[in-house]
Amino acid sequence: MPESVEIGLGRSARRGYHFDDIALVPTRRTRGASIVSTAWQIDAHTFDLPMVAAPSDAVVSPATASEIERLGGLAVLDGEGLWARYEDADDALAQLDTDTATLQHSYSRPVSPDLLRRRVKELRASGVRVAVRLSPQHTADLAPHVLAEGIDLLVIQGTVISAEHVASEGTPRADGGRDIAPGLNLKRFIADLDVPVLVGGCTNYQTALHLMRTGAAGVIIGYGAHLGSTTHSMLGIDVPMATAVIDAAAARRDYLDETGGRYVHLVAYGDIATGADIAKAIACGADAVMLGQPLATAAEAPGHGRYWDATAAHPRVPRSAVIDLGGNGERPALEELLLGPTSDPTGERNLFGALRRVMGKCGYSSLKEFQKVELIVAGAR
Amino acid sequence: MPESVEIGLGRSARRGYHFDDIALVPTRRTRGASIVSTAWQIDAHTFDLPMVAAPSDAVVSPATASEIERLGGLAVLDGEGLWARYEDADDALAQLDTDTATLQHSYSRPVSPDLLRRRVKELRASGVRVAVRLSPQHTADLAPHVLAEGIDLLVIQGTVISAEHVASEGTPRADGGRDIAPGLNLKRFIADLDVPVLVGGCTNYQTALHLMRTGAAGVIIGYGAHLGSTTHSMLGIDVPMATAVIDAAAARRDYLDETGGRYVHLVAYGDIATGADIAKAIACGADAVMLGQPLATAAEAPGHGRYWDATAAHPRVPRSAVIDLGGNGERPALEELLLGPTSDPTGERNLFGALRRVMGKCGYSSLKEFQKVELIVAGAR
Amino acid sequence: MPESVEIGLGRSARRGYHFDDIALVPTRRTRGASIVSTAWQIDAHTFDLPMVAAPSDAVVSPATASEIERLGGLAVLDGEGLWARYEDADDALAQLDTDTATLQHSYSRPVSPDLLRRRVKELRASGVRVAVRLSPQHTADLAPHVLAEGIDLLVIQGTVISAEHVASEGTPRADGGRDIAPGLNLKRFIADLDVPVLVGGCTNYQTALHLMRTGAAGVIIGYGAHLGSTTHSMLGIDVPMATAVIDAAAARRDYLDETGGRYVHLVAYGDIATGADIAKAIACGADAVMLGQPLATAAEAPGHGRYWDATAAHPRVPRSAVIDLGGNGERPALEELLLGPTSDPTGERNLFGALRRVMGKCGYSSLKEFQKVELIVAGAR
Amino acid sequence: MPESVEIGLGRSARRGYHFDDIALVPTRRTRGASIVSTAWQIDAHTFDLPMVAAPSDAVVSPATASEIERLGGLAVLDGEGLWARYEDADDALAQLDTDTATLQHSYSRPVSPDLLRRRVKELRASGVRVAVRLSPQHTADLAPHVLAEGIDLLVIQGTVISAEHVASEGTPRADGGRDIAPGLNLKRFIADLDVPVLVGGCTNYQTALHLMRTGAAGVIIGYGAHLGSTTHSMLGIDVPMATAVIDAAAARRDYLDETGGRYVHLVAYGDIATGADIAKAIACGADAVMLGQPLATAAEAPGHGRYWDATAAHPRVPRSAVIDLGGNGERPALEELLLGPTSDPTGERNLFGALRRVMGKCGYSSLKEFQKVELIVAGAR
Repeated sequence: MPESVEIGLGRSARRGYHFDDIALVPTRRTRGASIVSTAWQIDAHTFDLPMVAAPSDAVVSPATASEIERLGGLAVLDGEGLWARYEDADDALAQLDTDTATLQHSYSRPVSPDLLRRRVKELRASGVRVAVRLSPQHTADLAPHVLAEGIDLLVIQGTVISAEHVASEGTPRADGGRDIAPGLNLKRFIADLDVPVLVGGCTNYQTALHLMRTGAAGVIIGYGAHLGSTTHSMLGIDVPMATAVIDAAAARRDYLDETGGRYVHLVAYGDIATGADIAKAIACGADAVMLGQPLATAAEAPGHGRYWDATAAHPRVPRSAVIDLGGNGERPALEELLLGPTSDPTGERNLFGALRRVMGKCGYSSLKEFQKVELIVAGAR
Repeated sequence: MPESVEIGLGRSARRGYHFDDIALVPTRRTRGASIVSTAWQIDAHTFDLPMVAAPSDAVVSPATASEIERLGGLAVLDGEGLWARYEDADDALAQLDTDTATLQHSYSRPVSPDLLRRRVKELRASGVRVAVRLSPQHTADLAPHVLAEGIDLLVIQGTVISAEHVASEGTPRADGGRDIAPGLNLKRFIADLDVPVLVGGCTNYQTALHLMRTGAAGVIIGYGAHLGSTTHSMLGIDVPMATAVIDAAAARRDYLDETGGRYVHLVAYGDIATGADIAKAIACGADAVMLGQPLATAAEAPGHGRYWDATAAHPRVPRSAVIDLGGNGERPALEELLLGPTSDPTGERNLFGALRRVMGKCGYSSLKEFQKVELIVAGAR
Repeated sequence: MPESVEIGLGRSARRGYHFDDIALVPTRRTRGASIVSTAWQIDAHTFDLPMVAAPSDAVVSPATASEIERLGGLAVLDGEGLWARYEDADDALAQLDTDTATLQHSYSRPVSPDLLRRRVKELRASGVRVAVRLSPQHTADLAPHVLAEGIDLLVIQGTVISAEHVASEGTPRADGGRDIAPGLNLKRFIADLDVPVLVGGCTNYQTALHLMRTGAAGVIIGYGAHLGSTTHSMLGIDVPMATAVIDAAAARRDYLDETGGRYVHLVAYGDIATGADIAKAIACGADAVMLGQPLATAAEAPGHGRYWDATAAHPRVPRSAVIDLGGNGERPALEELLLGPTSDPTGERNLFGALRRVMGKCGYSSLKEFQKVELIVAGAR
Repeated sequence: MPESVEIGLGRSARRGYHFDDIALVPTRRTRGASIVSTAWQIDAHTFDLPMVAAPSDAVVSPATASEIERLGGLAVLDGEGLWARYEDADDALAQLDTDTATLQHSYSRPVSPDLLRRRVKELRASGVRVAVRLSPQHTADLAPHVLAEGIDLLVIQGTVISAEHVASEGTPRADGGRDIAPGLNLKRFIADLDVPVLVGGCTNYQTALHLMRTGAAGVIIGYGAHLGSTTHSMLGIDVPMATAVIDAAAARRDYLDETGGRYVHLVAYGDIATGADIAKAIACGADAVMLGQPLATAAEAPGHGRYWDATAAHPRVPRSAVIDLGGNGERPALEELLLGPTSDPTGERNLFGALRRVMGKCGYSSLKEFQKVELIVAGAR
């Protein structure tokens, strides 16, 4: 049983650990970085990097999707983002600032299924592997459109998701009440699909196991906490990512056993800003990481050095701020961020060069083996 | 038994947890926010929001009481505040600044029982449910006045209260000593009343149980710690609110058993600044929250964007500072603070919209059920 | 056995608690502050306040000693301070600044036994109870002088003291070595004295017990850590005061048993800046507190708003800095600091008014009873 | 077994302690500093101070090596530093700034074996004990050169080292792959040497034991974490030094037993900025400390008040920044830093005067005894 403390009379709680609470311990013979592989394979797709670019309009555009593919990762376009709302999304992006109200306004324009189909077509034409994110609320409506155009991976993602949402928010009635509509049943939905699905975010063993049972190819752990996130102060939900990923890895083991061998990928999303964080996510059991904020500083990033995610644009309860990362400085190329080399010693660039190096220093040559590296709990420096 | 550590040879202490030390864990199917209810019923009164506006002159005036009632909460007027000391309380409020000495001076004017009665009458006339707070020291003297005018709820509240105060501070004698007067016996006092009583603040199981036995309808947990509070550095008393509320909930269970079913409400007061804090208070077992500082930024707030509570005006040992929250910015409407919508992602606005949302994400549709949500202990971000 | 953790293979360490790590929990009926007594009696001397003003030239001069006596405390003059080195100590004080080198220079002038005797005579003449501090290194030389003039209490105090110092630093020999001189044997020294002795600082059970066995009337716990202290970064010695006082209280219990009833007083010295800290020190088992920095802001303080202790003037290894506390603001009277009333809500003024109040809120009417108040461990706010 | 916590379902981690997490507890009779010895003997060499100056070009030049020898320590020249790359190293040093790119450029010039030999010859001629550091990657190539000139101690040091590196990074092939070359086998290499070897850095029991079995005279614990280090955020590797040194001391005990008496020295390297840190390192079991940053502020330091180590110049993955320590102030002489006296109370000067003093206060007269001093775990001030 995991560590638990009694926080008051008759009420216990587990203790959760952030990536910042842990560190890696090299305990074996070292290996040269050149014999280390960071390759990641999910379903029929192989990637040089275990990296999914987050479905944030600040990070993934049709143009950056190509560059991310070239560098070895997978880009996910937000199917409910500005590209599906504006003919001229570049212009819409240019008009944003760090004001939440501006963002809310821009995202208040409805998603156009036609535009969405066109974006998928453009991505397809550019030769990349096409991945699109839809929210659980709109998957039933929008998925047919993206599937019709042919995609390689569908991402169904909200901040907190469950295998079965009890009810959508329903339709207002004349009497002021609402007709409660039944929610999306992920299990039934995914069973009917031909393309692999990533689903999330989830935060604990039980939900992870339920999401695995939907037939998803991968489960996203976390809700993408970043510098500007305020879900912890808005809702009181916080996800200590080290614990969350380890718990999901336990669910994966149990599901492997339950199914006699079906392996579901874990994609860690949240509190990842540096090479160290990526290494720790893998060390805890993730197969890949989903990166938003760390890529938003790239010169190529459509957000012009700002970062936000879908929660920032919520019309009533925004749960993150738009953050300005770029400052006035020159922004690095996506290639420097992902593959280096770099002259920046902060850990925020050459993210996967760093991963490769620490895998070697700890004596592992594949991601799967590296999930067994020894961890230590240590206070902050 | 709760977690206890030996902090020195032969001396143990429990470990207490602040709201900031814990977070909520969604572990079940999610629910749409529209099928979530935040309704709170205490005695014969029902409220849309589980919210009591704190008896601070910075927050509750006869005017804001009406607006708070309209928005679904309960406002408590401080029966020993400026409204009971000054004919023209608005003017007295306008003359305050952030200086403690100014505040002490303003509150040095004696309470006028006549004025107090007039304020109750005004509130009554405005159609709101009338709640007035008196200090334990002056309840015996002042309660008859407010009761005579007819109120809906009496709040007897000091920073730290006990069921039986051994002695009032007494009357100075000619010889320099003091005649020790016996204190207020809450049990006897409350038994004779017709109106429901909220009593507090208390900080632990034992006192909570004693206060429940006085016949109070509700017990206030905590002393309203806010940004400007210094009770912890003045007196060394600190209340880790998560633990305090959980302990009081244990007392409620035991008292339910002892009485064969009398349910006493818990109102959490202190360290609540955001929607997250409200959710955590309920999650720990509170039935409602008492809000001071979070409402003081409202455009309607009588404190002009400053906040203070009764402890700030103590003539000899002030135990909190007047804090300026408003800055120069535009202050939001009380409605935005309580019900949203908002463009502020800090968690300090749309407090109950956030509560409703997190209840849904955690899969609960009533406050009472939500008290069972899973908690996790995690380090600060 | 106290809480202990294995910090590495085969090496355990206790966990120590600072005053900041704990808080008081009111759990009983409350009492009016007027029936609370803060009286302290040690040997034949009774004081209204459990307070010893630290032997720092920044705090105790012959003039402030009178005022401290009047307000109810005991002032200790540093027998090796500027008053024993300079005819015109006021002038020497006026020439100090916050520079350690200046301080080292001022204190490099040798102590004059004649001047020291004269200071004792002056104190005696002013009618106060006379207490003088000497360092363990110079007690053998200087004590005869102060004793000859007649004092009420002798304080033998270094940062870290032991019952028997193995060797003084000795005399340099021609060959570059040193003749090791045997150190001061406190037990033999104190046995021969007629006046009560306070001895310290000590940091743990074992040393406390040894010091009690010297026949001292009181033992000082801690080395007076204050805002400018750097002993923890210079020497690596740190004293979590809550644990240190509790441990010493355990030693006192064992010594009481061993002697069939000899009660040795504990004077807590270090990490005390507020009324809360004083309350916590007593709560942990101290009979009184020694205050340096908290008194240095007084208008009457000879340090002109700056504070330093003996360690700051060490010629080779200074272990604290001179800190400027006064700023440009008006400095409060000693009376406001000790007895109030005050308009300062920080906890740094009306120190003993606050103590009296918290004793009442926790339901205790004497210091000795208050040592049993419940403690809680809680994270910082 | 060491303290371990379950950080997630089925995954445990030890808890590690930084020097900052612990403090020393004086528990015995005190001793005069004059009868305390800080002498350190390793192999045939005796030093007055248990101090190795780190092989950083910011600290050790041929000139400072002489001064360090005179003051009682051992200086290690970086055999792959600027002195082995530039004829006029002083000029190369003068052209550096705090920019990592500048540093990378300066260190991109190849090491010249001839220059390296010349530097060794110069050191030898100056009369100091000659110690040179080589990286594990280049030891095979460069060691013959330094050995040919005759050195007293060889230091083989990388950030993380293992007894057997599985493969060097190999040679690029035409097809884009690399020929994997077998790595350095330290055991075989050291067995053939006549001079004593220091090897490291290592971070845990297992590696320490393996490195001891190579026949090394001493093992370096840690990778030299300093203010500018970012290994923890670049790679996710962090070394809580107290735990690391204690673990290595356990390995030393086991190796002593295994060999029937071969004593391997432990040199602590990292998180040492003050006298306190040095004392704690010895207290945890180190025989000596390796100092980089603390010496870089010296007036004599070749880095002109800046500090960097070998990881800062890595061409692709720099893992520390160049930090400017000197400011504009006057920089202290190396002698003040190491032996005092000083007027600086921060703990950063008179490092070994402080060590001597704390050894006396804790009652120990030799370093080996001092390794048994009592430790306490305490929160930060």
